[in-house]
Formats: sequence, structure tokens, C-alpha cells
Amino acid sequence: MNVLERLSLNQETTRYWAMPDLVAGCVAAGVRGVGLWRQQVGAFGLAETAKLVRDNGLAVTSLCRGGFFTAAEPAARAEALEDNRRALDEAATLGTDVLVLVCGGLPEGSRDLDGARARVVDALGELAPYAAGRGVRLAIEPLHPMFCSDRAVVSTLDQALTMAENFPADRVGVMVDAYHVWWDPQVYAQIARAGERILGYQVADWITPLPAGVLTGRGMIGDGCVDFRRLRAAVDAAGYRGPIEVEIFNEDIWALPGEQVLAQLVERFPGLV
Amino acid sequence: MNVLERLSLNQETTRYWAMPDLVAGCVAAGVRGVGLWRQQVGAFGLAETAKLVRDNGLAVTSLCRGGFFTAAEPAARAEALEDNRRALDEAATLGTDVLVLVCGGLPEGSRDLDGARARVVDALGELAPYAAGRGVRLAIEPLHPMFCSDRAVVSTLDQALTMAENFPADRVGVMVDAYHVWWDPQVYAQIARAGERILGYQVADWITPLPAGVLTGRGMIGDGCVDFRRLRAAVDAAGYRGPIEVEIFNEDIWALPGEQVLAQLVERFPGLV
Repeated sequence: MNVLERLSLNQETTRYWAMPDLVAGCVAAGVRGVGLWRQQVGAFGLAETAKLVRDNGLAVTSLCRGGFFTAAEPAARAEALEDNRRALDEAATLGTDVLVLVCGGLPEGSRDLDGARARVVDALGELAPYAAGRGVRLAIEPLHPMFCSDRAVVSTLDQALTMAENFPADRVGVMVDAYHVWWDPQVYAQIARAGERILGYQVADWITPLPAGVLTGRGMIGDGCVDFRRLRAAVDAAGYRGPIEVEIFNEDIWALPGEQVLAQLVERFPGLV
Repeated sequence: MNVLERLSLNQETTRYWAMPDLVAGCVAAGVRGVGLWRQQVGAFGLAETAKLVRDNGLAVTSLCRGGFFTAAEPAARAEALEDNRRALDEAATLGTDVLVLVCGGLPEGSRDLDGARARVVDALGELAPYAAGRGVRLAIEPLHPMFCSDRAVVSTLDQALTMAENFPADRVGVMVDAYHVWWDPQVYAQIARAGERILGYQVADWITPLPAGVLTGRGMIGDGCVDFRRLRAAVDAAGYRGPIEVEIFNEDIWALPGEQVLAQLVERFPGLV
């Protein structure tokens, strides 16, 4: 299989590309998959999006995102779980079997990382049976440790796998995002350990310096220092055969026409990933 | 021992406080130690600084910094090693037995993390005998993974200890900086493993959001989410009895008078650390 056939465009890479244009653009470029975001799907309409991608023969390779499980208060916690059940319903409707989980940061004012991390595992336990009923797998995404305070207390593949291994492999796994894990001295050992729990492989480049806020500091593949090829070889060696999503948050890239971004991706992807 | 007696002011916390004022300020506040930086020492004069701190009864708890070992070119590498030998001489002259190592990032244009990390270990091997001859220990400081590309390819205590364990414990150890390691799911296990290789414990708080550039995003202790007390209990349980340096890089704190910053530290430290 040509690696380009595995390219999937995560729609946050081309944030302002309207859903029909995004779908048409992917079809025109020969890209076979898209990663979708709930807000964008909601804005265009869930049923409408499902029909659009289906009619155009595109695979939805993942839905972003569930998670944000770390609130300690029962009401906030129940609300988060309910929202995740809705996300699982939406994933099933869209025809993807992967819900990406950004697990949530430390609650405001808390220093109790262990507690927040334990609540993530509890939430997985609550959601796993529901996910199985929808035919959707939960993909824990370790985020770069710089997001530990505000977005994800799950910071490494080791930690994500230890959480996932509380559950059957066909229910809970991990999303390997090169941007978040490239620095980790354990990354190759943990990818090998992950095996069939690898539910996706995402790419964005690490560029220096980071901008303020850091969230939108991801670089176009090839503009930074991440060894995507080696990481891809590792996930492949672990048995992964699925799509490779490009997911880049970057204001400069968002300002470009979607076709132009996608053309650059298609050009660079085979040589880099 | 009262924990306040272990407080040491790393001078980068009060970057613009002139050396004599810093020393006088510490003495006046009852602070017994300072962590010094080579540029500042060089600007005031090495012999002059050594005499000033000695005459005032202050301990120099560490010298920052050696490191930047990752260049691949022989000339750049030789220059880095030579600079580290000078840093070891300076540490000895200042009367500290701890040289803090910021090991260096990925060379420009490189994606070869393994290679850069191997060069760090090689450099430690080159420097360890020289350090021993000066009575100075090399403290590998794992930096937060967000600095992996440009400052330190050593990102975790696990990794730093694996490097250090190639050498005798009285020559090479680690600096445990709470700011850099607080997020790590393995931090407590690794602190226990470190034992006598813990050459220092530094504190700065993690605040969100990070500013542009991220280097100067460290918070005053108590303003963020780091559990300093638990980390201190862990280093103590591992056998560490040494100073606790406050090292905060923050433009707003730099804009304040040194006395004011130190007074706030002395007030907050016993309740937090």
C-alpha cells in the first residue's frame, strides 16, 4: 500500500474550510479519509455530515474529541460523561470507530495529579461498555506534557497504555500523535508495547520557538524536527495498518486556502511520513 | 532542620539584582545559600564573587550552567567540552560542588534524537574525571519536554538517571527541578531510584497559559499547580538533605525589586515547599 493512500486530513488542519469544500477537496486530491471535529460536525449537521462523507466515499478516520474527565464535582463529572456518550453516538453515526480522548487537565486550583488521573480511569470504565455498544473504540491521546495543567493529565504513551490495559484491547486504546510523543525517550518501546491498541497515528511537526499559548504552535510536516518516518515504521511494526491523520493547529496554515494546504501535504507526505 | 534553612535563592529569580545587593539581601533575609549563573559571575568577576559570598558566609549551592553537548561537528564539540571544563573550574573556585548541566537540544536541521542523546553521554564520560579532579559533581538536569528541540534532549528523570548510572554516583547525578518534572507519571518512582544521585532540588511553579517563547513562563511558588511539598518529601525520603533552590524565570518577577521577591519567597516557602 502506497503511504499516500493512508493520508487522512484532520479537519482542524484546515479549520476554516467549509465541510462541503473540505470533502470535495479531499476527493479531488485523492485523499481517502478525514478526521472530524464535533463542533464542525455540529455546525454543519450530524446527519448531513454523515451523508456527505458517505456519498463521497470518504472514510471518517476519527472523531475529535471526547474526554475532559477530570472534574471532581459529581455534577460536572456526570455532565462530562453524558457529553462523551453523545460523542460516541456521533462517532457511530459518522461511521468511525475511533473517538479521540483529550482527557482533561488539573481542575482549577488543584495540585492533585494522581486524583485527576484516577478519575480518567474511572471515566474510561464508565464509558467503555457504552462505546462497545456503539462499535466505537476509545483512543486515549497522551498530550505533550506542556498541556498537563490545562488539557490532559495523560502525558505519555506509557501512562496511556497502563490506563488502557485495564480494559479489553478492542475497547480502549491509544492515539499516537507524533507531535505529542516525539520527545519521549520511551516512545519506541511503548509503541511496540501498544500493539493492537494503536488506534491511530497523527502527524504535525514540532517547530521552535513556540508561540504564546502554545496550542497553535504545530508546524507543517517537514518544517520541524520530528522523525515521522521512524515513528511510522514503529507503529507499522507494532501491527498498525490504519490511516495516518495530519492534524496541525497553526494560525498561518489556517489563513491559507484549504486546497493549497492539502496540495502541500500530498506533496510532502510520501517523502516524510 | 527548619525547611527555610534550606532555601537558596537562584540568582536568575532576581535577574537584575546586582551581585553585592543580592548577597546583602540574602544575608539580611536570613537566606543561607545562592545559586549562581556563569554570565553573572563573569560580569562581576569570578574571584570577586567567590570572595563576596565567602566573606558573607553564603553557600553557593550550584553553578548554572554547563552542558550544550549535542553538537555533532568536532570543532563545536571540542569547544563545548572546553567551556564545560572552564565551568568546572569556576564552580570549584566559587566553592560549590554542583555544576548544573542543560544538555543541549537537537542540532539545527537534525531529527536524530538518539544521536544527540548519545553525544550527551559521551560528553559526560569526557568530563567526569575532570569534574572529580575539581571536586565538583555533574548534575544532569532533565528539562521539560517542551525544551527538547532547543535546550535539552534530556527530558525525564528516568532518562537522566540512566545516563548518570554509567558513572560513579559521586561524580554524576541529577538536578530535580519541580518545574520540569512535576507532570511526569514516573516522577516519584524515579526520585526514589535516584537516591544519592540527587544533587539538588529546585522549585518554580507551573502557570497556565504559557507566554510566547515559554522560557520565561515560570510562576512564583504558590501561583501554579505544582505539588512542591510532595516532591520535597520524596527527595528527602530518597536521602537528600541539601538546599532547595528557588529558580524562577519570569519577566514580571524580574521587574520587581529583589528584596520584595525574596521577602515573598521567604513568606511562602515554609507553607508550600
